[in-house]
Amino acid sequence: MATKISKADDGTANERASSRSALLNAASALMTERGTIEISLSDIAKHSGLNSALVKYYFGTKQGMMLSLVEDVLGHGIAQLKGLLDMDIDPVEKLKLHIKAIITVYFRYPYINRLLHFLFEDPESAQIVAQTISKPLAETQRKLIEEGIEAGLFKPVDPMLLYFIVLGACDHLFFGQHMLRVAFGVDTIDDELRRRYTNTLLDLMLNGILKENAAARG
Amino acid sequence: MATKISKADDGTANERASSRSALLNAASALMTERGTIEISLSDIAKHSGLNSALVKYYFGTKQGMMLSLVEDVLGHGIAQLKGLLDMDIDPVEKLKLHIKAIITVYFRYPYINRLLHFLFEDPESAQIVAQTISKPLAETQRKLIEEGIEAGLFKPVDPMLLYFIVLGACDHLFFGQHMLRVAFGVDTIDDELRRRYTNTLLDLMLNGILKENAAARG
Repeated sequence: MATKISKADDGTANERASSRSALLNAASALMTERGTIEISLSDIAKHSGLNSALVKYYFGTKQGMMLSLVEDVLGHGIAQLKGLLDMDIDPVEKLKLHIKAIITVYFRYPYINRLLHFLFEDPESAQIVAQTISKPLAETQRKLIEEGIEAGLFKPVDPMLLYFIVLGACDHLFFGQHMLRVAFGVDTIDDELRRRYTNTLLDLMLNGILKENAAARG
Repeated sequence: MATKISKADDGTANERASSRSALLNAASALMTERGTIEISLSDIAKHSGLNSALVKYYFGTKQGMMLSLVEDVLGHGIAQLKGLLDMDIDPVEKLKLHIKAIITVYFRYPYINRLLHFLFEDPESAQIVAQTISKPLAETQRKLIEEGIEAGLFKPVDPMLLYFIVLGACDHLFFGQHMLRVAFGVDTIDDELRRRYTNTLLDLMLNGILKENAAARG
């Protein structure tokens, strides 16, 4: 339909986009603030200053809105990861950037993993998340690992197993935030803690915990 | 109260213990089977063949029953871990046994981490889990790591950060079981997969992913 877009139409389209974003941003902010994905449509409406009926209008259901949020938040990262693969840097640097990026996503959107698991419990949403997020992520990560193995830099490792190790390790500081507070007395994950966690994980992933003399023994 | 226990009283005590266990076993079996911690008291009653009022009698509330289940399942492992510290084997072997034991717990009780996080959302339960499970685990793990560092076998690493890396990596294959199924087409975690996951994680934790030549470069 090659109709010319008038100023008025254009305005409406922008408004639509901005109401849609306002709802997603409100949901994101509320889940981050409250440390739970159990938020109500009326809370989202109140926080965004919009009518909760708009959720139905834009996303069909609350579940649909959560799915859009996951795609918005993670879709960008998936696209970046594909770009990373094509970059002219060595696989070790690529792996470092990749792990840093994952931790940054969890840092910015601490609810994201709970939300993914919630969506995975519904068969239909699970298929969509798998197609748009998990499979592309696993596939690109696999290529990155294979590139490193072929370059003689990485030991041979099963990319599927590595997927769960990396994702679990990246996520757990954030997912386990209650535990961090109650068991370690640390109330907030600030930028400094995020950086230390990233560096410790990277060092462990790349070089292991054993000192060279201990490694040579084994 | 030093009253002599008659045969009849003793029988009653055994019955109490066995009804209590039957309820906990039913809850454990149902959560494992269904892949969710959302189970009802009437399901537990049906599965155990006992009246659901007994939950109130033994545990006060369903939350109380879940707390007892976590303590039953994990308390044993915490005790074993303390025993491990005192064993006359080297810290590398201790760390290996420790990580294997954690994965085995997740393998046998795949719901355990969800349950912990559920309990951590309630301030009162969180305090109890922290005191009986998380703090002793973190504390014993810290001693194990410090022993390895002092023996010149481990690189210096922050035990708190390592706690989240190890727990997250151990758990994620199980916690992410929906993802395993939908994104990788793997329906069940069998003993062989558990073993491969354990070995891959151990190798990564101890020696890292970099080949020696690549590690020397960095």
